[in-house]
Amino acid sequence: MCCGGRCCVSMTQCFFDYSTSKVLVIRSKSVGTLNRFCQAVVLAYIIGYVCVLKKGYQDTDTVISSVTTKVKGIALTNTSDLGLRIWDVADYVIPPQVASRREEAKVQARVLCPLGPSSTNPGPGSTCTSGRDCKRGFHDSRQNGVQTGRCIQFSVTEKTCEVLAWCPLEKGNDPPDPPLLAEAMNFTVLIKNSIRYPKFNFNKRNILPHVNSSYLSQCVFNRTTDPDCPIFRLGDIASEAGEDFQTMAVHGGVMGVQILWDCNLDMPESWCMPTYTFRRLDNKDPDNNVAPGYNIRFAKYYKNGGKESRNLVKGYGIRFEIMVFGKAGKFNIVPTLLNIGAGLALLGLVCRAFWILKLYD
Amino acid sequence: MCCGGRCCVSMTQCFFDYSTSKVLVIRSKSVGTLNRFCQAVVLAYIIGYVCVLKKGYQDTDTVISSVTTKVKGIALTNTSDLGLRIWDVADYVIPPQVASRREEAKVQARVLCPLGPSSTNPGPGSTCTSGRDCKRGFHDSRQNGVQTGRCIQFSVTEKTCEVLAWCPLEKGNDPPDPPLLAEAMNFTVLIKNSIRYPKFNFNKRNILPHVNSSYLSQCVFNRTTDPDCPIFRLGDIASEAGEDFQTMAVHGGVMGVQILWDCNLDMPESWCMPTYTFRRLDNKDPDNNVAPGYNIRFAKYYKNGGKESRNLVKGYGIRFEIMVFGKAGKFNIVPTLLNIGAGLALLGLVCRAFWILKLYD
Amino acid sequence: MCCGGRCCVSMTQCFFDYSTSKVLVIRSKSVGTLNRFCQAVVLAYIIGYVCVLKKGYQDTDTVISSVTTKVKGIALTNTSDLGLRIWDVADYVIPPQVASRREEAKVQARVLCPLGPSSTNPGPGSTCTSGRDCKRGFHDSRQNGVQTGRCIQFSVTEKTCEVLAWCPLEKGNDPPDPPLLAEAMNFTVLIKNSIRYPKFNFNKRNILPHVNSSYLSQCVFNRTTDPDCPIFRLGDIASEAGEDFQTMAVHGGVMGVQILWDCNLDMPESWCMPTYTFRRLDNKDPDNNVAPGYNIRFAKYYKNGGKESRNLVKGYGIRFEIMVFGKAGKFNIVPTLLNIGAGLALLGLVCRAFWILKLYD
Repeated sequence: MCCGGRCCVSMTQCFFDYSTSKVLVIRSKSVGTLNRFCQAVVLAYIIGYVCVLKKGYQDTDTVISSVTTKVKGIALTNTSDLGLRIWDVADYVIPPQVASRREEAKVQARVLCPLGPSSTNPGPGSTCTSGRDCKRGFHDSRQNGVQTGRCIQFSVTEKTCEVLAWCPLEKGNDPPDPPLLAEAMNFTVLIKNSIRYPKFNFNKRNILPHVNSSYLSQCVFNRTTDPDCPIFRLGDIASEAGEDFQTMAVHGGVMGVQILWDCNLDMPESWCMPTYTFRRLDNKDPDNNVAPGYNIRFAKYYKNGGKESRNLVKGYGIRFEIMVFGKAGKFNIVPTLLNIGAGLALLGLVCRAFWILKLYD
Repeated sequence: MCCGGRCCVSMTQCFFDYSTSKVLVIRSKSVGTLNRFCQAVVLAYIIGYVCVLKKGYQDTDTVISSVTTKVKGIALTNTSDLGLRIWDVADYVIPPQVASRREEAKVQARVLCPLGPSSTNPGPGSTCTSGRDCKRGFHDSRQNGVQTGRCIQFSVTEKTCEVLAWCPLEKGNDPPDPPLLAEAMNFTVLIKNSIRYPKFNFNKRNILPHVNSSYLSQCVFNRTTDPDCPIFRLGDIASEAGEDFQTMAVHGGVMGVQILWDCNLDMPESWCMPTYTFRRLDNKDPDNNVAPGYNIRFAKYYKNGGKESRNLVKGYGIRFEIMVFGKAGKFNIVPTLLNIGAGLALLGLVCRAFWILKLYD
Repeated sequence: MCCGGRCCVSMTQCFFDYSTSKVLVIRSKSVGTLNRFCQAVVLAYIIGYVCVLKKGYQDTDTVISSVTTKVKGIALTNTSDLGLRIWDVADYVIPPQVASRREEAKVQARVLCPLGPSSTNPGPGSTCTSGRDCKRGFHDSRQNGVQTGRCIQFSVTEKTCEVLAWCPLEKGNDPPDPPLLAEAMNFTVLIKNSIRYPKFNFNKRNILPHVNSSYLSQCVFNRTTDPDCPIFRLGDIASEAGEDFQTMAVHGGVMGVQILWDCNLDMPESWCMPTYTFRRLDNKDPDNNVAPGYNIRFAKYYKNGGKESRNLVKGYGIRFEIMVFGKAGKFNIVPTLLNIGAGLALLGLVCRAFWILKLYD
């Protein structure tokens, strides 16, 4: 029988053979110091990076979460066309966003009207002198109506093509400053967030155990005085994100609310707390201000005597996107062994490689 | 020429030098047994953990998916203020959720009315004796109207500040038990889910190939008898999640439907099947029942003779959040080699480290 | 004092001991060639795979993004029941989707009407001869009304059970071909996408710095001529995804727009560009066409003289799901060292293992 290139007496003997490298001991202060230093680095890496920083002794899990929000607040507006008007939640909240400015076009109906000058209606064929300038059935995807082929008076001085559309057409004006619902900065939003780490069967929510109903009915989040209150004032969110609410409200925008749940489940449960950060997500680069902000068009439909009419609303709003991130760790023997083993092996080799290079010189 | 610290005849010869450790063979039963045992552990780790459990020989991809849902069901209610009433899908489905309880406030209009006692309207200035107790223009973000500064009769015994608001104001009552749409537990939801693993160009959907139209028109999901039917009864979802539908329906809640697609694409395609799990995502901790459940306010607007009115609806509903998870694996030579190499290397080293420690004693 | 199994003069001397393997140099052309080849493979792996392909010298971060969309376009329809009609954005966009086909049932009210034959109303008890065939209070979750227990004339030849429902009931017809809003393929959608790599404090958006307002007001995305225009024609999206818009519009569907931002932040910022890919996400497998497409029911409510009526709309639409993916990398010394070390160690070992096997033979 042969094993490892050498002939053995029996297979059993061969099975119990153990081969190890012959070792040479170098007794030198400089080499020894470097060797111990290298081992200290390996040890520091394993303890500091793998164990403390990366928590390599823990098994990890990512968060599953559910978020619901509720906005509160009322605003009073006084404009020439609408008069004194009150707005509450059902009026200004289109599910995922808060309208800070609503522009209501007049009531519209499906009728015929002039297209208006090209400044507000891009594309060909808006101004005309006779019906020959207008193409029957023509419509540009950026315009709001289908041309009938007739040329009619738009104003005293101007004639434009007639269109079949929801009339009167919207005017493409720039949004007025200040926003209509300037008081929106005092609105509050209650964010209810429940999280779950399925691997560890751990549940928690951002309304912490010590928060009671009476506190919840009157508190407002403040990083220093009320860090556990899940009710946020819109103006505070904007200022924490480094934005001016009134400026942002004019064109609308998207505001990100990030909730971070980094939990070390080897620690007491009360250490596992949400951290809130606010950040504007849409562009606000002044050098690149093409198509700024965020707005949405929607309509309320009415029927009067069988005829349908609608109220077209162009809402410049602030949309809140709530993002929940999180990772939980808990001690587990398998990743501990794997990480320590891998740490020792990898950095030990790097050390050895360094020494081999050293000795060759 | 010199290489590795020793002088060589030529650079070519040096290039072909190969240096290996001198090996010492220990012929001992105890050492040999431990050595073979250590090798067996390494082998078991590579085969068991890296190959079988972690499928280290496969290239993996995560799922891209699309989900659409359709709810079906009708409910009949008989309440004192609304009379006998029929509700169908368009009435109770606000896109992502099912209202199990709808509370319709009376028709509201933008007029003046008394604020009501402080029990239902938090904040200062609700009850008053004269106009001096009311501040003109004052409003709290938690109240529903702007004060006019007058103090008017709310009931025979009580006077409260007058507000400009959508009147009559909502009453902040606790939701009645049982829920209005108790029959919602018999509603069904059809979940259509298509998945895709882009790296393997693999598509599948949860309506499996053997499911035909006639089966789909009458089946209901049941884990034992109809595991492939993508139509779920709301009551079944709740009971699988360990919840009582009627209790949950009172305050509303968020129900998570998790669809797991873990596919081994080395196996026949029919083995790649969705697994459904249901879990309540919002809080249900009895010790922490501040702000429980889930509700949403929305309004239907009407116009009668130019005057706008609205029907404010406070819906206590169950929101379904459908989450699709999945990972697919398929044999690929690159990860196979890398994982086997790494497995051999890492655990071999751990073994060796153990032996070195052993021998030093 | 003893260390490493041997007795030493002092602990200090022991501390500076360094032990290394005794090395055997084999001077053989065949062995040397294989050795150098193995080293070349290791080097190629580290440079090619770890550094160039996997960019192991970079620290990475995943994208946080915000997306808003705006659809433009008008359509003119001429049907027998609705007459000449104009549709604009507020009419056909239900927030996340575009209706390419809308089927409006007649105006409905909560009254009594016959159920209709079983072909359109699945479940028992639709056709009847007398009241005994109808169960008072019975309803199937797939039907649209609650039976009153009476049997009434549905047509001249047929009698069906009477139901309390939103009447007249919907007819379960197959959708007509071609789609009602065939012009929807010329609609355009503007996608505004802002991204952020928080670790590198890097922001960008898909409206690139060189795109100005006038270009944006008239451009349409085209992979060769206008790759930077963020305005997409619906028909183009469908054809890029290999679908026929008109076919897809009949039953509706879900279209995925994937925006990929893979950025190497060691390169100039202008190299970090979005890549758009389009893909149909719902099923289109001809062998598995049960419950195809995507449709949604919603209602517009009206009140005439205190009586509520509604317009039930069954919209067959195309839902756009915009998914943003991305990873950014930037040079960092820590992952560079770790990856090179690990690369050397792992593949060096694999090499060595190969040699040990070789020498044993």
